[in-house]
Amino acid sequence: MAYTITKKIRFDDVDGAGIVYYPQFFHLCHAAFEDFFDEATPVSYPDLITKKRLGFPTVSISSDFIAPLVYGDTAIIKLAIKNIGKSSLVFGYRIRRKSDSELCFTAEVTTVAMSLDSMKSVPISQEYRTLFEKLLEA
Amino acid sequence: MAYTITKKIRFDDVDGAGIVYYPQFFHLCHAAFEDFFDEATPVSYPDLITKKRLGFPTVSISSDFIAPLVYGDTAIIKLAIKNIGKSSLVFGYRIRRKSDSELCFTAEVTTVAMSLDSMKSVPISQEYRTLFEKLLEA
Amino acid sequence: MAYTITKKIRFDDVDGAGIVYYPQFFHLCHAAFEDFFDEATPVSYPDLITKKRLGFPTVSISSDFIAPLVYGDTAIIKLAIKNIGKSSLVFGYRIRRKSDSELCFTAEVTTVAMSLDSMKSVPISQEYRTLFEKLLEA
Amino acid sequence: MAYTITKKIRFDDVDGAGIVYYPQFFHLCHAAFEDFFDEATPVSYPDLITKKRLGFPTVSISSDFIAPLVYGDTAIIKLAIKNIGKSSLVFGYRIRRKSDSELCFTAEVTTVAMSLDSMKSVPISQEYRTLFEKLLEA
Repeated sequence: MAYTITKKIRFDDVDGAGIVYYPQFFHLCHAAFEDFFDEATPVSYPDLITKKRLGFPTVSISSDFIAPLVYGDTAIIKLAIKNIGKSSLVFGYRIRRKSDSELCFTAEVTTVAMSLDSMKSVPISQEYRTLFEKLLEA
Repeated sequence: MAYTITKKIRFDDVDGAGIVYYPQFFHLCHAAFEDFFDEATPVSYPDLITKKRLGFPTVSISSDFIAPLVYGDTAIIKLAIKNIGKSSLVFGYRIRRKSDSELCFTAEVTTVAMSLDSMKSVPISQEYRTLFEKLLEA
Repeated sequence: MAYTITKKIRFDDVDGAGIVYYPQFFHLCHAAFEDFFDEATPVSYPDLITKKRLGFPTVSISSDFIAPLVYGDTAIIKLAIKNIGKSSLVFGYRIRRKSDSELCFTAEVTTVAMSLDSMKSVPISQEYRTLFEKLLEA
Repeated sequence: MAYTITKKIRFDDVDGAGIVYYPQFFHLCHAAFEDFFDEATPVSYPDLITKKRLGFPTVSISSDFIAPLVYGDTAIIKLAIKNIGKSSLVFGYRIRRKSDSELCFTAEVTTVAMSLDSMKSVPISQEYRTLFEKLLEA
């Protein structure tokens, strides 16, 4: 039920220890998040932000870094939904190394639907709720 | 008891919604972490990595994004230590906006002392234990 | 004759003025450069670096920023080769906005084939010369 | 006559070959550019952008990468001004490794004073012209 993308680890994703710099894992998650909106919802994430003035800023993260990724690896990023509240939306991410399917990273990222004009949380509409429910984990 | 640094939010730290892109908060934390090693321990973090072949990779994160930072803000980043285990070290970070002292971000980042040659965890030496204890929160 | 890739402008590619931060254009170029090696040469760029210990570090850049890209745009990046010397290789990049084909950026990037062990330039082999000639502009 | 800042090379500034990723040099330049506005002009660069709606977008770059920087190096970045036109402003950057003063990078970056509302170039005011002239190279 997860939404999945594949991304190469790029030349500048690594750090001084030769492995993917840990905040880069969140960039990989954000790419999956953006692609999900672009492909599986009626409005792309850029249009949601700039035209609808609606965003899903991150309010909390809980994540585990299980195995390293290195330059030359390809990452498989799976996005699922853990919980749909009135305004809040909890995404679950799992990143595996493509070559051997090893699980490298998991995260729960809590976001809140927010009007970018009022900067206040807003209820998630029924239309989006239905879309998100397709990715809801049992 | 915290180790504190101050960093300007830079032109490229913001995202498409005009606020600091959430993974950038971890870059701010890492700058404090590196500066702490460089200034308050006998070996700079680059030398620890490249010469001593010892690192403290991140194994888990729990963080809350409380208020946004924007371009033009200055961030005050405080690093303390929450727990010292046999090999593990839990850092606590608090980031405030300098202009009004608003708390914007907190994180607990668990790291493990690791040999970069064997890629296995190693015990934290007494010398480092003593240094870390100076930042240990009550 | 150019090698072409397409990349979305991502949420964190923009700067405090709301347009793509100018150094990000070079990341787009580097993605095309890496993909070219991965797809059109016998050895991927990561393997070239880590196994063959051969790289093509950049020694000079001349570039023009003609029109901005914004969040929501998709970039079309074309890589061609301008000159093949004994050790040097000049890449030409052209980046267009996909929606209206407007030319946004051009660059000439001079690189040198270098042994990562000796850190000295090395001649470009006949095998690679033949591959590069396929992208050579008239 | 140059404006000078000092910056540590950070853990995430390096690339898959273990040296500073070449576009990162432009981040170092931009930090000097921002600090110059913040310290040596009446309006910080963030305020210039967000309140005065005036920016200096980059229109062309010519740069040479002379020697690498690695993790653990400290960079000394010197900003001077090469030319002041009606609307254009050419910055000259020189980056040296602090430990041995080796010149690693030079760049000429041409910018244009631009209204962020009309997105058209505007003349550089006499007030700014006088400030820029203090850094003008002979």
